[in-house]
Parts: sequence; C-alpha cells; structure tokens
Amino acid sequence: MTFYHKDSKNSVIFDESIKWHSQEPKGKLSMTLPKPINGQYDLALAYSPGVAAPCMEIYQNPEMAYEYTGKGRTVAVITNGTAVLGLGNIGSLASKPVMEGKCALMKRFAGIDAVDILINSENTDFLIDVISSISGTWGGINLEDIKAPECFIITEEVQKRVNIPVFHDDQHGTAIVVLAGLINSLLLTKRNIDDCKIVINGAGAAAIACANLIKKEGFNPNNIIICDSRGVIYKGRIDGMNKWKEEYAVITESRTLEEAIVNADIFLGLSVKGALTKKMVSQMKNEPIIFAMANPDPEISPDDVKEVRDDAIIATGRSDYPNQVNNVLGFPYIFRAALDVRASRINDEMQIAAAHAIAQLAKDDINFSKSYIIPLPFDERLKYTIPIAIAKAADESGVSRKKIENLMLYRDFLKNL
Amino acid sequence: MTFYHKDSKNSVIFDESIKWHSQEPKGKLSMTLPKPINGQYDLALAYSPGVAAPCMEIYQNPEMAYEYTGKGRTVAVITNGTAVLGLGNIGSLASKPVMEGKCALMKRFAGIDAVDILINSENTDFLIDVISSISGTWGGINLEDIKAPECFIITEEVQKRVNIPVFHDDQHGTAIVVLAGLINSLLLTKRNIDDCKIVINGAGAAAIACANLIKKEGFNPNNIIICDSRGVIYKGRIDGMNKWKEEYAVITESRTLEEAIVNADIFLGLSVKGALTKKMVSQMKNEPIIFAMANPDPEISPDDVKEVRDDAIIATGRSDYPNQVNNVLGFPYIFRAALDVRASRINDEMQIAAAHAIAQLAKDDINFSKSYIIPLPFDERLKYTIPIAIAKAADESGVSRKKIENLMLYRDFLKNL
Repeated sequence: MTFYHKDSKNSVIFDESIKWHSQEPKGKLSMTLPKPINGQYDLALAYSPGVAAPCMEIYQNPEMAYEYTGKGRTVAVITNGTAVLGLGNIGSLASKPVMEGKCALMKRFAGIDAVDILINSENTDFLIDVISSISGTWGGINLEDIKAPECFIITEEVQKRVNIPVFHDDQHGTAIVVLAGLINSLLLTKRNIDDCKIVINGAGAAAIACANLIKKEGFNPNNIIICDSRGVIYKGRIDGMNKWKEEYAVITESRTLEEAIVNADIFLGLSVKGALTKKMVSQMKNEPIIFAMANPDPEISPDDVKEVRDDAIIATGRSDYPNQVNNVLGFPYIFRAALDVRASRINDEMQIAAAHAIAQLAKDDINFSKSYIIPLPFDERLKYTIPIAIAKAADESGVSRKKIENLMLYRDFLKNL
Repeated sequence: MTFYHKDSKNSVIFDESIKWHSQEPKGKLSMTLPKPINGQYDLALAYSPGVAAPCMEIYQNPEMAYEYTGKGRTVAVITNGTAVLGLGNIGSLASKPVMEGKCALMKRFAGIDAVDILINSENTDFLIDVISSISGTWGGINLEDIKAPECFIITEEVQKRVNIPVFHDDQHGTAIVVLAGLINSLLLTKRNIDDCKIVINGAGAAAIACANLIKKEGFNPNNIIICDSRGVIYKGRIDGMNKWKEEYAVITESRTLEEAIVNADIFLGLSVKGALTKKMVSQMKNEPIIFAMANPDPEISPDDVKEVRDDAIIATGRSDYPNQVNNVLGFPYIFRAALDVRASRINDEMQIAAAHAIAQLAKDDINFSKSYIIPLPFDERLKYTIPIAIAKAADESGVSRKKIENLMLYRDFLKNL
C-alpha cells in the first residue's frame, strides 16, 4: 500500500481515475441485451415457456450449453484480493476496480464477455471448492491477484476438477509476455538460448511462472538463478523455501543478487523498486537484457541503466518508457482462442505459441529494434494473429474440443470483433 | 421433465426458442463498455496505474465500492438448478437459459445489470458458505429455482451473514404478485380480508411464501388451509411434515383438497395440472377467486372454470389467458428500489408495498375488472411507480442506507431507464 499517496507522481492520474470510475454508470462494465425482448412473444421465447426447450437440450447433453447460452463466450475473473497490483493484500472488495478492469480489457481487446467474482476467503481448500463449484457457468476462468504460493495450488487443483481452462494471469499471462520480449531480445543481441545466464529477482507467482515457461522454451535450468528477499535460492538453502522455489534451487557460490548478477546476460525483475543498482548493471555482460517490471516503479529506471550501459535492452511495466511488458498483450487473445476452440486447458504449447506470435509482430514491424521488442497494446494486428497461433497450438496438442475448420474465416471473425 | 415433448402444444414456441437462443451472440446477455478505452491514457485510468486509486479508497472505506464500481447496480442470479420451472431438478448447467433469462428481464424492465451464477452443489451448508463468500461482488442476490425446504434455510442464513438483500424470487417474488392479484380480487368481489377462507394447494417454496405474505397482509391464519400431495396439512399430521408446513397446520376435519375446498372463497394453486376439478369449483362460494398457477398447464383451465362458474375471477401463469400472474411484475422493480436505496434486505414492508403498488396500477386503469386484476408485463407505468413505493417502504422501515431525497427526480430517473 506504499505507492498510493497524493504527493506521488501519479497523483494526477489518480485523481482522474477516481473521477472516471465514479461517472455514471459507475465502474466500467454494463450488461446489454443483444436480442430485443419486446412484447409477449419475445418474452415467451426468452423466458417461460420457451426457455424450457434449451434447458432440456442441455440437460440431455451438457455440451449444448455452448449453443444456447453465453457460456462459450464468457470468462470469469476471480480473485480473493490477496496480491493486488503493487498494493498487496487489500481484500477482495477493494480489488473490484482491478477485476472489472480486467473484464473490460477482455471485451475491449478480444470481444470477450467477462464477469468479476470476488471471493472473501483466504482458505485455500475452500477457494478450490468454491471456484470449482461455480466454474460451469463460464467457458474459462481467469484467476487474478491471488498470492503465492496458494495461487499455484489453487490453479492446479481447480484445473484438475474442471474441463474449462484455468489461467492465472499473474503467473501465465506475465510469463507469456516476458517470453515474447526475451525471444526478441535474444535475437537482437544474437544470443544463444542454451548458454544465456538469467537472474530472476522475485520468487512470487509471476517469477516462478516465468522460470517455468522460459525453461520450457529452452533455457538451461542451471543458468536460471532466482533470488527472493533473502537472496539466492541455492541448493541446500532451508529458510523461506517452498516446493516451487525448491525446483529452481541451483548449485552456486552466489548468495546475494549482487553476487549472482555478475556476468549475467539477463536480469528479470518481478520484485520491488530499486532492487537493481547501476553498479550491478555495470557487472552484467555486454548488451545486457534488463526487464525491470516492478509496478509502478521498476527495479531500476531506464535512465539509470543508460547511464552505465547504453547498449542495454530495457523493458519495464510502464507505458511511459519503450518496451512495456503489459499483460494485455496476452490474456485477451489467449482466452479468445481458448474459448473459440473450447480448450479444456491453456497448456504450455499454447503459451509458447502465444509468446512467439507476439514476438513475431514486433519483428515484422519496421520499427523493430532494442526499443521496440514487443508490440504496443493498441496494435490492431494482435487480435487477428495471436488467437490463430494459439488455436493451432491447442489443436495440435490435443486440448481443443472444437476444430476451427477455416482459418481464413476465423481471421475475418477476429478482425471484426 | 414431463412437459417438454415435441408433440406438446408448445412445440412451435420450443422450436423458435431453440433458434432464438442459438443465434449469435448465443444466449441473451452481453457485456458492454459504457466508457471508451481507446489509447494509453484511457488504459492508465481504467487499469494500471490509475485503478490503484479507487482500490485504496475502497480499502479504506468499503462503502466506496458503490461509488467506483458496478456493485451498486448489479445483481447476481444464483441457482443450483434443483427446482427449475416445471422441470424439476435438472442441475445448475441446464438451468442456465433460465438464469440468463432472469438477468435479461432485470435489464429489460428495470435497467439492472445482472449476472448468473450456477453452483454445482446440493449441500445446503456449502451453498450458504459459497453464496455468502461471493456476495460482496454485487448489490443484491436473487436466488432462483432452489428447491424447498433447502431454499428457506439458504435464504435465511445467507441474509444473516451479508448486508445486501437476499431475495428468493420463487418465494418472495411469487408471493408479491399473488398478493397484488388477491388485493384486487377481494375489492372486485367486495370481500373482507378477515373472513376469507383460502385453500392453498402446494406446500413448496412459493406456496409457503404466499401463505406468509397474505398472513402479514391480514388474512386470518385459521382461514388458511394448505394442502400438499398427501392432502390437508392439519394439526397433528405426522407424515411429510417440516417446520415450515407445521406453521400452517390447522384444526380441521378436512383431509383432502376436495373436502377443504367446500365453501372456500379463494383457491391458490401452486401445484400441478388438473389438481382442481370442475366439481370442486362448483362447491366454492359465489364469485370464487381461483389462482391456478401451475406451469405451463394450470390446475384447471379457465374455460373449465367458466363452464361451472361464470362469476369467478381466474388468474393463471399463462400469457394466453387474462390475469397472468407473472413474477416479472415484481422482481425487476423490487431490485431496482433495493439497489437505489442500498437496502440491507427486502423486508415484509417492502414486499407488501410492492404488492399494493402493483394492484393500484390495475385499479387505476380504465379496464379494471375481473379479467384485468393485475397489470401486463409491458405496462410502462410499472418501472416508474413500483420502485418508488418500495423505496419509501424501505426508508420508513429502516432498511435503507441511502435516502432518496427527491422523489420527483427519482421518478424521472426511473422513466428514463
């Protein structure tokens, strides 16, 4: 709760945001009726007695819910408010503006209907039961801002129980966009994925998910060093460990970020403001790749990096610097594809396909360079290319339940969203 | 599941309804963004970093959720699908078309945003926990199609735990519209409420709720006889009883509906097709009041009643006969008022005020007669009169948390919904 104070440099945005949110209709989502209900006949179709017909068809074949209801185009954004933005555990109600925001972005960027669900509980087993029991309502579940390590257990357990995708954007969404940026960073600095040394600062949901995905992409696990607030996660460390961190414990002499960063190719910050110093940057390899994604203030400012290394690639979470690592490049299109192919989960193959497709868009652009490694959020190409790549991956990896027969028609559909 | 067969007289409506539901966008609800999000600045207001401001204001004062989010204009329609229409326990997923329909009617008639939540459970304690834990998301809860007697416990227990209204439309909504019809029926037949004998056939959620509300209105409990499938609920009966039925066990010689109906003023059917015979009708008092509300086929057809008693008042649940007792006359306006005054519950005073206001609209109409005892669903007056009456009752009975200062302005607001 540190960064919300009136004298912060965001105070103008904060004031404007308060005004914007309180304008009628309050919040940012509204329901609408795509089919008019005017007069008794419409009422008889939409409600009693006509509504009994789709009910009974679904009763006989649950899959028909995708034909007669909004299930197949609706996602739930679910939280308990335990790890909200940089604000921490503010509770589910206070996180509602973020959740409605997520829903709004799903609609804005990929035409997906989304509803927010706030669960007032920190009991992991109960959360698993609740989410599983209500999941049938929608075509996908986007978990949001649930703290680690509970989020790992919840995501995994719920996914076991349901046949729709369970995606935790703080984990998977972040990892996808980070990987997209890294793919292009490696290309621009002519690095080989096999021998890159990467230091990840932070061991929360996003950090562990990034480590998982870059490992799948081909990074050597021995070259991935994760640091948390107690320092390097090394083989044999006992304090502050959990099974997710354990998986990344490496044999190393380094005990601190300062020691680990020496000769690193890549710094991946998912931690706090100021965690990376100019001195550390100067000890990284030539053309260092620095993703400083602490929000709202990065681990090091791009200006500070440039003072010591003008050959660096720098990405942050901010829109006022180049290379914004923004989850909105990922989740809307991932859910779009997942819904359209009725994926039963969003597997690694789909996530890696998404990252490559996002990277490709920047690469295809005339501006492709160290200061343009990933596309901008309002890049129109995203919506009609990313879902296609993901849908193909879902189909090829066997998690889709509905084949997209004609990709050109699908592309047109996406363009018109 | 008896009435959904292709050769039924509803088969045309069923076919059309299937077509209507499967038209794109499938189902009947869509999200929309009332405020545009175009460009980085809008994104900064609606999402990071600006969204932190409303989050922290809500964190400091939960009531601010009504200012910065859609909470105060959104209702959840929640079911477990155990008592859906006349279809019975078809499960939560198969009930989705009904739930989406309810949401659509909230929007169509009272401008309320509503989302459907399907809970896949028949465990009463779990349902109470789930509904309570997610209730903070919305400004009100409409429980729907949950079977009796569980629905009584769930409604009551959830209401104890939350500070937003918990309304079970099958109970309270039905009772309100039935009472509206009865008020005008008594008036038209110059009956005195104190000495009316009423026989209720059915002892489910709606029947018990009707008994509760008409008792509050002034019916003498000794003159209310309830019959279930085993016959009259009499003092001393042991089989098939529960505490809600027990409250209406009366001292009587009658053991069957046939015996109980003799000299009754009113028959209130919330049971099954054919439960009331012409012979029974002929044994009722002059100008009998017959509400035959089994769906889709009433306890007796209006034509059959007329054969034996041309002085009767007849109401059904059907739109193809006069006097349709339709819940849509109630719930949209009740939630409209409840949200607008931030009611902590929908109490008896509000329900009775709603019934009188609905009755008044028919009374005020030039067509007021035995075949026009309640308004039609698309009567435009409903939306700008019913909520005002309910809001006043909420305020006077101390359950509103926000006073409507100017009723004329409120009326204009309602007219423009």
